[in-house]
Formats: sequence, C-alpha cells, structure tokens
Amino acid sequence: MGEMSEDMTSSSKSPSPSIRSPEQHVFLETLFVSLDPYLRSRMTGREDGLYSPQFNLNQVVSTFAVGRVIRSKDSNYGEGDIVLSPTAPVSEYCVVPSQTLIRKIDADAGVPLPEYISTLGVPGFAAWVGIQVVAEPIKAGSNVFISAAAGAVGMYAGQLAKLKGCRVVGSTGSDEKVRLVKEEFGYDDAFNYHKERDFDAALSKYFPNGIDVYLDNVGGEMLEAVLNHVNQHAKIPLCGMISGYNKVWTEREGVRNLLNLIGKDVKMQGYMVGSYLDRFGDFVKEMESHLKQGKISSKLKIFHGIDKFLESLGSLFTSSNIGKVVIQVK
Amino acid sequence: MGEMSEDMTSSSKSPSPSIRSPEQHVFLETLFVSLDPYLRSRMTGREDGLYSPQFNLNQVVSTFAVGRVIRSKDSNYGEGDIVLSPTAPVSEYCVVPSQTLIRKIDADAGVPLPEYISTLGVPGFAAWVGIQVVAEPIKAGSNVFISAAAGAVGMYAGQLAKLKGCRVVGSTGSDEKVRLVKEEFGYDDAFNYHKERDFDAALSKYFPNGIDVYLDNVGGEMLEAVLNHVNQHAKIPLCGMISGYNKVWTEREGVRNLLNLIGKDVKMQGYMVGSYLDRFGDFVKEMESHLKQGKISSKLKIFHGIDKFLESLGSLFTSSNIGKVVIQVK
Repeated sequence: MGEMSEDMTSSSKSPSPSIRSPEQHVFLETLFVSLDPYLRSRMTGREDGLYSPQFNLNQVVSTFAVGRVIRSKDSNYGEGDIVLSPTAPVSEYCVVPSQTLIRKIDADAGVPLPEYISTLGVPGFAAWVGIQVVAEPIKAGSNVFISAAAGAVGMYAGQLAKLKGCRVVGSTGSDEKVRLVKEEFGYDDAFNYHKERDFDAALSKYFPNGIDVYLDNVGGEMLEAVLNHVNQHAKIPLCGMISGYNKVWTEREGVRNLLNLIGKDVKMQGYMVGSYLDRFGDFVKEMESHLKQGKISSKLKIFHGIDKFLESLGSLFTSSNIGKVVIQVK
Repeated sequence: MGEMSEDMTSSSKSPSPSIRSPEQHVFLETLFVSLDPYLRSRMTGREDGLYSPQFNLNQVVSTFAVGRVIRSKDSNYGEGDIVLSPTAPVSEYCVVPSQTLIRKIDADAGVPLPEYISTLGVPGFAAWVGIQVVAEPIKAGSNVFISAAAGAVGMYAGQLAKLKGCRVVGSTGSDEKVRLVKEEFGYDDAFNYHKERDFDAALSKYFPNGIDVYLDNVGGEMLEAVLNHVNQHAKIPLCGMISGYNKVWTEREGVRNLLNLIGKDVKMQGYMVGSYLDRFGDFVKEMESHLKQGKISSKLKIFHGIDKFLESLGSLFTSSNIGKVVIQVK
C-alpha cells in the first residue's frame, strides 16, 4: 500500500476552493472511517513488534476510509464515485493520490458502505487470511478457539471456521458478548474471560478434546493457557496481541510454555494482512458471495462525527465494543 | 516407534542361558548407547511440554542403541547382525522385540558404528528435519542462526545449512567450541554465549542484516533475543529448548516479544522427529551420501562403560560436551 507524501495531503474542516488538488489526486468527502487496533502501534514512537510506520508529530493520522469523490484529477475516477482508501487522513475532507486507492465501490451492489471497511475490509481480510490461508488445511470437525471473539476479526473468523464445518468456541469480555457470538455469529460456545479467570480450567471445560486451531487476537496469558491444550499438529495463526499494545515489550507477559510447540508439533505463524495483498481479490470474491447469501453476519459499532476519533480509538482497548468500530463522518 | 512391554524385556550384567528369549525377539549385546536431552523429559514424572512417555520407577531406562545380535528368534536377524534399536534398555545385554528394530546395519559400509546413533541417528535426523523440512525453502545466502551449535544437533544443522549456501552463525558455550564450529563444522562465525552475555548486542553484531532462519535448541532468553532480530518471513524450527528441561514450565523464562512473529510474518514451528519417520529413508540416503563424500563431519564425546550412564546424561546439561554424547559399552 502506498504511503502519502506529506506535502500532497491536506485536510480541512470544510472544502475550500483554495485547496491544492494536484494531478493524479482525488478530493474526497470522507464517509466512514475505520478504527483498528494496529493504529495504536503507529503512535508509540517505537518499533515494537508490529513494525508499522510511525505517525509523525504534527502530521495527520491516516486510516482506512470510504469516501466520495468530490473532485478528481484522475480520469479513472469521477465526481460521485465511492472509493476505498487505505491511507485517508482522519478528516471530513481530504486529498489523496489516486494511485493509493484500493478500489471503486459499486454503491448499488446492495452492500452497506461501512461493510467495505469491515466484512470486506481489514478485519474480514485478517480473519480470512488466518482461517483460510495460515491455518490451512482446516478439517471439518476441528476444534477451533478464537479470542476476542466478538471483535471485528473474531466475529468473522468464527463464522468462516463454522462454514468449514469446525466446532468453534470463543472468549470475549462480557456475558452480552458471549450471547451475541453464539446467537449472531453461530459459535458453538463461548465464555466471558472476566468471569472465568482460570483460563486453564475454562479451556479444559470448553475443549475436552483439545484445540486444533487457535486464532490469536490477544496474546499473553490466553496464548500461554492455549499452549497447554493444543493437540498434535495444531495451528496457531497470530493475528494480533491486543493485550500488549499499550506496553513496551519488556513489560509484556512472557509465554513460558513454548516447549508445547515442540511436543505437539505445532505451527505458530504471525501474519500482517499487507503481506497477503495478492490474495485480496480471492478474499473479496468469497466474502461478497457469503455476504450476499447471508452466510456471514456483521455487527458494527458506529460512532458519529469525526470528533469522536479519540473516543472510538480508545474504545478498542476497553473490551467495551461489539463488532467493528467505525466513525460515520456525517 | 514401538514401545516394549515390560515382561518381554530383560537386562542383565552378563548373558545367561536362563534368559527369556521369546519368539520374534532378539538377544543383543549393546555396543553403543545414545545420550540425548529428551531423555531428561522422560524422567520428570510430568507431561511438561515434550509429552514423551515417562519411564516408570523400577523399570529400566531405554534409549537408542547399536547392538550385536547374540541370539535371534526372528528369521530376519541372525547371530552377529548389527542392528539399531530405538528402545534398548541401558544395559550391556538385552532382549528386545525384533519388530522394534529400526534397521540392520552393514558393518562393512565404512561408517563407524556410533555414527548410526549420531550422523545417521536422532541428532542428524533432527537437524535434517529442521533445515530440510520445517525451514523449507531456505534460499542460498540466507542468514541462519543455530544455538547449541557444537551440540549433537547443532553441528549437523550448521553443516546442512552451509551445504545449502547459507551464511551460518552459531552460539555455543566455550571459546574452544567457538573455534571448533568454525574450523570443523564450517560455520561462518560463532560466539561464546557465556562471554557475550548481551544477546541482543551479539545478534546485532553477527547479524547486521537480520536473521532468516533460527534453529532453536535452547529456548528461553536466546529465543527472545532472536525475535528482536528476525527478518520478514523468517522461519524458526524449534528442535529443543534445553534451557527449560530442568524446570517446571511455570518457572521457565517467558518470551515477551512474540508480537514480532506478527510484525515480521514469522513461522515458528516445533517438531518431534518421531512425527517425520516417513522421511527417515530420504534422510539416511542423503546423509550417508554426504558422509561418504566427506561433506559432513562429526564429533563424538565417548564415555566408556555402561556405568557412565548417569555421568554422561548429566553432561548434556552442563555445556561441557562437544558433539554427540555416546557410551561405548565395551
């Protein structure tokens, strides 16, 4: 994905005739802004595991967004086009290089626009890469565990594993979310990790036959507990480790039982979705099909107004949300 | 590999005409006994990561051994045959079920007999699986790091990586061993981890371009240091974690920076050689060829006499050995 150069990018509270709009750029009205945990790792001033490029001080924060083209200096885009940008400044209006745009969106396709940054965006893609690519091959009947199960990635990952005929159990942060992942996302079971604090006991209870696949979104203590319950040849796609994002690495919880990876022939593999962009087309095709057939459901937590950016970003780290967090700008 | 039933197995200080020797069994004179770190994990009374079956109290300890057939109740084996047993009682003589034997050894093939429990045995196979199977594909020019580089697995792993055109650096426990792995095993460089205690600084120095493959034999602190130096798409075959074998898992050093696995798209995969027995034939063919062409060299630490068993086993955990530890029984 391209990075914008600073002098080519402007943001403003309202469109102004004086705004710079150079060739091969589009002027966008931002419609929906995506809030994702990886943004936190771009604000630490350290390369601390995720190696995401750091936002500079006094430079606008950028993220995935759905926008409408207000003016275009690229013949591929016309006024009124709806587009997906991976590096849109968090603002009501912006100018971005047109080559950075990921796709033009068919607004009449019957898919609600925020789904392009959810089911068909980073969280959907992250779930798909974990389950369909990194954990491959998953056999029907496999015992699959997903942490942060009611989060943006977890809700899709569980549904994709169910579509493969797996038994899926999730952990999440409230009784309401436990109910939701079972009723809305079709998980076979789920538990509230705030209530069932003895993770080892919980995993013994929910996985009497052990764990074949663990899609990790949290890291730390839960990952350690899982390693005492893995079956032979288990696979552990590492999607995120949100328990550590607010700490420097030396303060994170150490995982002491990695020896289980040897004794049980386990593959643990981290992945950044940006490394799998060659599969993005396959993903969109499959997920759009699931979505249109009603095989995948989605839950959005919508904040209203660009001034909710900090609040909505902070909410990702308090286990207070359900599903994908977005800002509806207008 | 088969397990022997207790009542079918006897051991004795000297052969006796009264020894039981049932059908489909062979009576062996033990020639060379293999000492390997995994034996420690069979003596803890706990399933603690490696999940090796525990030795029972008052039952003889068994290991890999080369033996000579003294008497046979199986038409496939005759008196004088040299055989490899994976579950020979640690004793001067023993009776084992003939179906448990791995292979008959051609004593005239020009390969010294202890090599069948070293280059062509568990350590050679463990190195081969790590480099040739789990880390596949390794590109020529890759930066490969191997811990316990002068140990039984490390010496072969480094040489196999060199044969693939990699740049190979090892860590080991003395200046003498540093010299040895460079001069004898062809490592490009090596360091003494007792002297260069700041592993992070050492890895910065020896891997200015980062690490592409890390074959882990030690776990703990060294693994954590490596994770701060991995390149994108690095591979970490986990062969052993000897730093933890004398501790229960809750007392082992935790690895705090697993987030690097995500940020760098790293695959970390544990393996037990017993899970790759379908590749044993390929391994023997390749390693025998290397051995006969002088492309692989080997260092043995030989203890003399079966009564050295405890001393030789203990020596595996003191960083005092070079190469593969065996007992020459006579």
